[in-house]
Amino acid sequence: MNAAPKSATVALVQMSCVEEAAPNVEKAISRIGEAAQRGANIVCLQELFAGPYPCQKEDHAQFARAEPIPGPTSERLAAAAREHAVAVIGSIFERRAAGVYHNTAIVFDADGATAGVYRKMHIPDDPLYYEKFYFTPGDLGFQSFPTRFGRAGVCVCWDQWFPEGARLTALTGAEILFYPTAIGWIPGEKDIYGASQHSAWETMMRSHAIANGVFVAAPNRVGREGEVEFWGASFICDPYGNVLARGAHDQEEIVMAECDLSLIDTARTHWPFLRDRRIDAYGNLTRRFLD
Amino acid sequence: MNAAPKSATVALVQMSCVEEAAPNVEKAISRIGEAAQRGANIVCLQELFAGPYPCQKEDHAQFARAEPIPGPTSERLAAAAREHAVAVIGSIFERRAAGVYHNTAIVFDADGATAGVYRKMHIPDDPLYYEKFYFTPGDLGFQSFPTRFGRAGVCVCWDQWFPEGARLTALTGAEILFYPTAIGWIPGEKDIYGASQHSAWETMMRSHAIANGVFVAAPNRVGREGEVEFWGASFICDPYGNVLARGAHDQEEIVMAECDLSLIDTARTHWPFLRDRRIDAYGNLTRRFLD
Repeated sequence: MNAAPKSATVALVQMSCVEEAAPNVEKAISRIGEAAQRGANIVCLQELFAGPYPCQKEDHAQFARAEPIPGPTSERLAAAAREHAVAVIGSIFERRAAGVYHNTAIVFDADGATAGVYRKMHIPDDPLYYEKFYFTPGDLGFQSFPTRFGRAGVCVCWDQWFPEGARLTALTGAEILFYPTAIGWIPGEKDIYGASQHSAWETMMRSHAIANGVFVAAPNRVGREGEVEFWGASFICDPYGNVLARGAHDQEEIVMAECDLSLIDTARTHWPFLRDRRIDAYGNLTRRFLD
Repeated sequence: MNAAPKSATVALVQMSCVEEAAPNVEKAISRIGEAAQRGANIVCLQELFAGPYPCQKEDHAQFARAEPIPGPTSERLAAAAREHAVAVIGSIFERRAAGVYHNTAIVFDADGATAGVYRKMHIPDDPLYYEKFYFTPGDLGFQSFPTRFGRAGVCVCWDQWFPEGARLTALTGAEILFYPTAIGWIPGEKDIYGASQHSAWETMMRSHAIANGVFVAAPNRVGREGEVEFWGASFICDPYGNVLARGAHDQEEIVMAECDLSLIDTARTHWPFLRDRRIDAYGNLTRRFLD
């Protein structure tokens, strides 16, 4: 029989950032404490929370923001997890070796131990999001990690547009799929496309929840940095895609929801998609195009 | 350079059905004519439009509804396509051989020629949707077919919950992805879960449009049959997931929208997901679970 139902209270820290790293890290650490005090079990920070989004141009000076793992920022997160007895998911500009930098997320369990590391697999490259210049594509694959409060899968930002990443992470047993994010409106687009872009973003992640029968939680950056207006709207949804909590577009927030993890089995037996996958017919998903 | 932009006007026939086949087929044929008169280029019928949804129980008598392909109903559809110079997508309970029945969709080009045949790959089995009893899983894979008005991919109903099917169909070059559907509310669920179920259904298909940069068009059955209240709400959305047209929950309709197929390249170059797929890391999608 199943283990007893358990629930996890998830908190997403949606914040703005300043140029210097230290105040951002202090703010995040403080918010982890605040979330814990409000009852959070798992706290997830936004993508690259320790600084402004570094990829608005191709600028070698930005590599100076990177840190090794473990390193000063990861140690601070581990200590905060331990101090508050919460699992913490943090996103770090990782310097792995000379010329090998990653966009990396770390899952810390509630005792501060590292539960696992994920390196962003899908790397974008668009005007004002020049990530291919900075980040070596991840080489650890799609994974999830056990924490005291549930099994956490982590993908990062651009990954959220790829059903393959969500599926593979879910197939490793993830119960909650986290997407630390930095997405916003760029000049001249908000009035015409803004609502549609935000809707598409949320729709994709709600679809991952539905297709895989998992909770999805996405903290996003907020505030203007250079040309980009980060759109906040961090949210948590259940395995049916129902949004349980959603942040504002224009202010800092801790977005929280209780996630009843027993719903995962309920969803997957009532909408039995994992039962019916045609794994005999999916081989061509490893092809680029079928022309 | 690209070929000149082209657009296709898509029409979805959302209708109710009676017990006997003939009036349903007559109605569908008549609606194809009406849609053509209103400017449609491609007309798609709902799943198994020639009869009531046959799978509410496991009843051997229902196999008598099946027909060979080509057969009387497919010939009627071909003739309607030719007469009105529209492409037609029809869904048929196919008798392929003794004991081998499929849930099949046929794409007819505007001259009545068969452009292609798709056999439903993912077969559901849930209370009131006992399809595994009736339908042999499809063995033709995920495909799309050229028509005079654009390249049509077809999946059927339950397929709509599987991102893999949408992706593979899109990778074959589909410009519009059609989902003939028969989905509705079952007793006792509508008040509590009805809105969420409908939202999840539309969300999944909007996500296929977004993830793949294609138009999606889903005609659904309407009206009560036995215990099921089919929820209509047939819709067409663009490659950004914007809903261009949506039918009512409770009445017959022809849902139409003009689809500017040049948007596909625009969407895919502005949201370049197909560029960035990690095909080196997707091999495990052919696994059942990764435990």
